[in-house]
Amino acid sequence: MALSNALQIALMPGDGIGVEVTEACVAVLRPLARRHGLGLDFEDLRAGAMAYRDTGTAMDEATFERAKAADAILLGAMGWPGIRYPDGTEIAPQLDLRFRLGLFAGVRPIRALPGLPTVLADPRAAGIDLVILRESTEGLFAARGRGEIIEDREARDTMVITRATTERLSHFAFDLARRRAEKRGRPGKVTLVDKANVFTGFAFMRKVFYEVAAKHGDVAAGDHYIDAMALDLLRRPWDFDVLPTENMFGDILSDLGAGLIGGMGFAPSADIGEGHAVFQPSHGTAPDIAGKGVANPTAMLLSAALMLDWLASRGAGPAWAEAAAELEAAVDAVFAGGLRTPDIGGKAGTAEVARAVVERLQEGA
Amino acid sequence: MALSNALQIALMPGDGIGVEVTEACVAVLRPLARRHGLGLDFEDLRAGAMAYRDTGTAMDEATFERAKAADAILLGAMGWPGIRYPDGTEIAPQLDLRFRLGLFAGVRPIRALPGLPTVLADPRAAGIDLVILRESTEGLFAARGRGEIIEDREARDTMVITRATTERLSHFAFDLARRRAEKRGRPGKVTLVDKANVFTGFAFMRKVFYEVAAKHGDVAAGDHYIDAMALDLLRRPWDFDVLPTENMFGDILSDLGAGLIGGMGFAPSADIGEGHAVFQPSHGTAPDIAGKGVANPTAMLLSAALMLDWLASRGAGPAWAEAAAELEAAVDAVFAGGLRTPDIGGKAGTAEVARAVVERLQEGA
Ligand SMILES: CC(C)[C@H](C(=O)O)[C@@H](O)C(=O)O
Ligand SMILES: CC(C)[C@H](C(=O)O)[C@@H](O)C(=O)O
Repeated sequence: MALSNALQIALMPGDGIGVEVTEACVAVLRPLARRHGLGLDFEDLRAGAMAYRDTGTAMDEATFERAKAADAILLGAMGWPGIRYPDGTEIAPQLDLRFRLGLFAGVRPIRALPGLPTVLADPRAAGIDLVILRESTEGLFAARGRGEIIEDREARDTMVITRATTERLSHFAFDLARRRAEKRGRPGKVTLVDKANVFTGFAFMRKVFYEVAAKHGDVAAGDHYIDAMALDLLRRPWDFDVLPTENMFGDILSDLGAGLIGGMGFAPSADIGEGHAVFQPSHGTAPDIAGKGVANPTAMLLSAALMLDWLASRGAGPAWAEAAAELEAAVDAVFAGGLRTPDIGGKAGTAEVARAVVERLQEGA
Repeated sequence: MALSNALQIALMPGDGIGVEVTEACVAVLRPLARRHGLGLDFEDLRAGAMAYRDTGTAMDEATFERAKAADAILLGAMGWPGIRYPDGTEIAPQLDLRFRLGLFAGVRPIRALPGLPTVLADPRAAGIDLVILRESTEGLFAARGRGEIIEDREARDTMVITRATTERLSHFAFDLARRRAEKRGRPGKVTLVDKANVFTGFAFMRKVFYEVAAKHGDVAAGDHYIDAMALDLLRRPWDFDVLPTENMFGDILSDLGAGLIGGMGFAPSADIGEGHAVFQPSHGTAPDIAGKGVANPTAMLLSAALMLDWLASRGAGPAWAEAAAELEAAVDAVFAGGLRTPDIGGKAGTAEVARAVVERLQEGA
């Protein structure tokens, strides 16, 4: 990372509302960067379902190499209903990025924004603040594109859990919980979500997890079966902190978590590896509303905040962390101030949210 | 099934609160059977974690054979934290029964009881009435006890999806939706829950599902990705009807569903095959409250209602279906009347609920 020069952000807007929320995000990031003196250069890269339709390739090698060379990748959303690979699976270069760049740590914060109505009747739901940590390079997804079909009779997909990745994921979880504990001023806790009572792979994952936990004695460690966790995320989500889990389980729990806090429009994500990272909203391309300017860009803005914070942790300097915190606070403030997007019954469109956040940033100045 | 004689019910109370809710259930079933002239013989069979601890076998062969010979199996709950097989997995003979008796259809109704507080803020949650149909003999669970560990470095578990089972499950789903539509007086809908956008096995499952759907033109068919379904079960669970899915996904969704309607204490289940079936509450043995007489027996009572209904459909006669409907109505009535169990903040213990249901049945007479 050349600190003297601007950092390179690979922008991959992708398809559908991915394009719209990326545009809104850049409109917020530019003035934010100026205010904080952050050097940020954006490079637009094309990948996704439309790219596949037009060129026959979802993400060509040159594009991949440029994304890889960037300091961070900011991705909108990819995929489109009618456009599929010949085997019927979805055009999802974001999965290729996770696998090829080794982005094992899928960080998916689930935080209730102040003042937003929540789906749960219990008022404690306003205090939801947890992170699903989805392993993103193996698990059941190791079978992606490798499943077997035997004579149109039987299909097999193999879930793979390795010691190396489980160790890295576990260390990541404890480090994250420690940072969150400092920030929030209360003890952190890491709860592994598995199905160790039935599967060899999960019993193995749990064993390795506790080996790593022993090296992080300052952070509490626990475990939970996936089925019980699905239930407890309804009953007492406010009790959880950092939840590392297998790829497929993490996919399910992160959508469930998003549901708790207003939907996918409020759920950011970061897929982090050793030296590379992709930041993107958890939502998809939303063909039903694409092109109408009504997509909620909040998840994208919060993903950008995660990006600034990660760049800070990689040595970009404290101004980057301050900008991240300011962006998050500005997003909170506009919703606390009553702004409502269509996905939660309001009217504020994509550009309007971006404008409100920019104004709020200027007021904060 | 010898209709002239009493039907044989294999009772497997199992461990922990399984024993308590089974006792409460029998206390309700005996007078109900008398009122409707149903011939019901109970045979107590021992299996579970305590059986394993005491005898070294979780369910011996003679027990299995007697359960198999019975007309239906009514099971409490099995398993216990400290008691595990040598490989660390849970003592769960209920899984052996599913696999060995080919109980592919795990029927898990999720229905909001009238008057009960629900976890969701939206008042439409009072109208939740859907069925998770968990395939229960293959899927990821095919790997149970068969996972591989390679040199303490990597673990592999293979998910298996067969055409034969998917066809049976799909037919079962459409037949169930049709019966529910008649009963409820509104159109049925079957929604397959899968991850066909990423996995060969799920793409295969979806293909087979729609082949079967074509033979049930009178019932609407659709599909949903598992992650989106986890979210939609929070946002609009009242929109769904019958949800067939893979074993592991069904395990997760049925706990999530139970969370929507007051918890596991209200979630009955039936594992149904060709000629055999096990009926049991979805909850576990609840070591924290076992032995205290406070377990909510509702899920067990509703499971017994499913059993009576299934026996009716197998030719036991219409009195059995009437008894099933009456039992369900009596359970509804006691909660509508204000009775509250400890799991939802009330005080009514196991025996008190049973007594209230019996009284209500007598009043209805
Ligand atoms: C688009 C899809 C393949 C992807 C996934 O399952 O990983 C998405 O659901 C996600 O969570 O990022
Ligand atoms: C006890 C456990 C092995 C079991 C399962 O996962 O099938 C339980 O969760 C269930 O849902 O019946």
